[in-house]
Amino acid sequence: MPIIQPVRGTRDFYPEDMAFRQWLNNQIREASAQFGYQEFDGPFLERLELYAAKSGDELVKEQSYVFPDRSGSMIALRPELTPSLARMVAQRGKGLTLPLRWWSFGPFWRYERKQKGRSREFFQWNIDLIGVDTPEADAELVAVAATLFRNVGLTADMIRIKVNNRRLAEKQLQEIGIQGELLPITFRLIDRQDRMTPDAWKAYALESGLKEDQFKGLVKVLEDLEAWKSSPEMLQYFKAVEALGAGEYLDYDPTVIRGLDYYTGTVYEARDVKGNHRSILGGGRYDDLVSVVGGDLIPATGFAMGDVVFGLVLDENGIAPDLRVCPADILITTFEESSKSISIQIATELREAGYRVEWYPEPVRLQRQLKYADRNEIPLVVIIGPDEMESDKVSLKDMVSGEQKTFSRSDLLSRIKNQLSG
Amino acid sequence: MPIIQPVRGTRDFYPEDMAFRQWLNNQIREASAQFGYQEFDGPFLERLELYAAKSGDELVKEQSYVFPDRSGSMIALRPELTPSLARMVAQRGKGLTLPLRWWSFGPFWRYERKQKGRSREFFQWNIDLIGVDTPEADAELVAVAATLFRNVGLTADMIRIKVNNRRLAEKQLQEIGIQGELLPITFRLIDRQDRMTPDAWKAYALESGLKEDQFKGLVKVLEDLEAWKSSPEMLQYFKAVEALGAGEYLDYDPTVIRGLDYYTGTVYEARDVKGNHRSILGGGRYDDLVSVVGGDLIPATGFAMGDVVFGLVLDENGIAPDLRVCPADILITTFEESSKSISIQIATELREAGYRVEWYPEPVRLQRQLKYADRNEIPLVVIIGPDEMESDKVSLKDMVSGEQKTFSRSDLLSRIKNQLSG
Repeated sequence: MPIIQPVRGTRDFYPEDMAFRQWLNNQIREASAQFGYQEFDGPFLERLELYAAKSGDELVKEQSYVFPDRSGSMIALRPELTPSLARMVAQRGKGLTLPLRWWSFGPFWRYERKQKGRSREFFQWNIDLIGVDTPEADAELVAVAATLFRNVGLTADMIRIKVNNRRLAEKQLQEIGIQGELLPITFRLIDRQDRMTPDAWKAYALESGLKEDQFKGLVKVLEDLEAWKSSPEMLQYFKAVEALGAGEYLDYDPTVIRGLDYYTGTVYEARDVKGNHRSILGGGRYDDLVSVVGGDLIPATGFAMGDVVFGLVLDENGIAPDLRVCPADILITTFEESSKSISIQIATELREAGYRVEWYPEPVRLQRQLKYADRNEIPLVVIIGPDEMESDKVSLKDMVSGEQKTFSRSDLLSRIKNQLSG
Repeated sequence: MPIIQPVRGTRDFYPEDMAFRQWLNNQIREASAQFGYQEFDGPFLERLELYAAKSGDELVKEQSYVFPDRSGSMIALRPELTPSLARMVAQRGKGLTLPLRWWSFGPFWRYERKQKGRSREFFQWNIDLIGVDTPEADAELVAVAATLFRNVGLTADMIRIKVNNRRLAEKQLQEIGIQGELLPITFRLIDRQDRMTPDAWKAYALESGLKEDQFKGLVKVLEDLEAWKSSPEMLQYFKAVEALGAGEYLDYDPTVIRGLDYYTGTVYEARDVKGNHRSILGGGRYDDLVSVVGGDLIPATGFAMGDVVFGLVLDENGIAPDLRVCPADILITTFEESSKSISIQIATELREAGYRVEWYPEPVRLQRQLKYADRNEIPLVVIIGPDEMESDKVSLKDMVSGEQKTFSRSDLLSRIKNQLSG
């Protein structure tokens, strides 16, 4: 019989894969905690209408996994967290003490073409500051991102955070006659520029309703690297970014606009320098979303970062962590059927003393048991062979030095204490 | 506009809920690590056929969330982990060094009637020992469970682990003429006994094909608390449980059989004493499953424990943990617009010194900022008011004692060091 295959676009997390996911989760927890953020989570299933409001057609119609539940309502596997967050804030309303600083790390699903750096089932860090509509709040978020980057060894020459502001962009576009319905269309156009050839992009712009001179004006807007200096909001933002010690990672970039419909102010993306300038994280301000899902008008800002591209970027920069997978400090070997109980009792005693102890569950050749310890990088092995049994002794083998010593069983705990603290 | 509602049977994890989920995850991680188990995870989506093989009709046909993907294959939101684990072991085959000790904690979905202790989207601990077919392996698993119980304060008078063995049960049933096709039917019958009245259960037994004398024999089998003494396997199992220090939690119980079709040997359930003897965890030996999904014949044993009932049992026994939600050590207050930068800089300096620092992002009344610190149990507050600004000083308020001291800004770090270590 052939082995039943996994679902395309999902991943199996064998212990070595899981060690990376857990390491990333811990790094995210630490960076978030350094700024006082509290962990939360939404459900993994939500009604489709929650996303229909503001997430944009691409995400809702093309990328979401959707199915009817037994009552007939359309359910989506969450493709992103922000709408759930907005719903949760709307639901508690005045029961929450603002500001809220919340973060989360969990699974999301998007139906995407299979390619490097994409997985249909992926993990994402979400972090948001809710209830504050100042440039400093936006600045704090990128400072949290910069803290994570620094903590894992991603320096400012490996990764750049590209920032823009939709209010500034709106003003610039209005000056060249782009407004009303043409505005969201032009935002979408800007967002897709790097996925198209210049000719195709121009054709798409004209088809979308831009006039030739508006298109020329748009090209100029996207090339103007000084425009932020005319925005008091962005001046205040960059000042706060400096005070937060995150300035070295940031660039103003008028071509960044982000694809989601709900952004209202600051928008940004982190991209790697070495690779194809892939987007590592993205976020921005979304002051309307809580009210759109039925709550009060509560301002908010935040970002999301996926696990897959982040892992690739660490690899390509040679800074992926070297992780131990097996948690055991000590392996207790088994010599023969009749000695199983003694081995198990020793393991139990050592666990009660606070050690992490694995027991080899079969009396196979000692060589194989030692090889098992070696492969799992277990530093100490306790051996109770026939000689040891007879004289109530045990042997302790240090797997790093290879040194092996035999002594009275009653000395085992103090010997282990010496070895593992040494 | 009304607030968009969550999906029935899902849960929102506000920070205080998430703190419990994370605490439970850490307790599970610690108990698993004490025995050398490595963390892994399967995908959240699997092909329906993976469960069709051996999970039993109730789980597959009545409880699974199933939908067709865009290629037309039937996909299930995982209702349990064991089949994914078997598939992963089958897939790697000889590339894995046996024995494997693996654990996981993650989300699962089952379409169940909404009731206390049930959630359609829930979290589950799974832990398995793969590649060993001895009673000691089965015993180790319940010792891990007992370790978790002990670590969280669930004593042996609050919780009992009820154990049986399907091979022993099979032998007992054969002695009263129940065999062949009647065997799995009788196992299902035993599994449902506690969900039916005695009369209804007898009627169900006779309808299922049991003769009157077989039914009488079955009742006797289910009342015989000494039968385990005739099973060398169970004798060896209970001996190992004692050596593992877990004996105080265990009872032999011939009425425990478990609902899943894939169990082949030891089966068990932990139940709480105070409540309705609800099932807290359940597991057993499943030696065929890896081969059923297409791999080699590899023996395995393990259990699963859900988060919802476990939380209720802790509550009802008065041992639910008291958890702090906000990670910040220090809150930096903000006096006025023009002092924001100074506040942010102080926060940045303290973070660089290793502290977890939250910044109050708006110059509202100091009272409100202090109330925020109090609600979030942040132990220290730094105040930079007009007096402090003028003289380059800061004030530090201890939120526990209420004491407040003013000193030179350059002394802040050493003062905080004293306060937080003291």
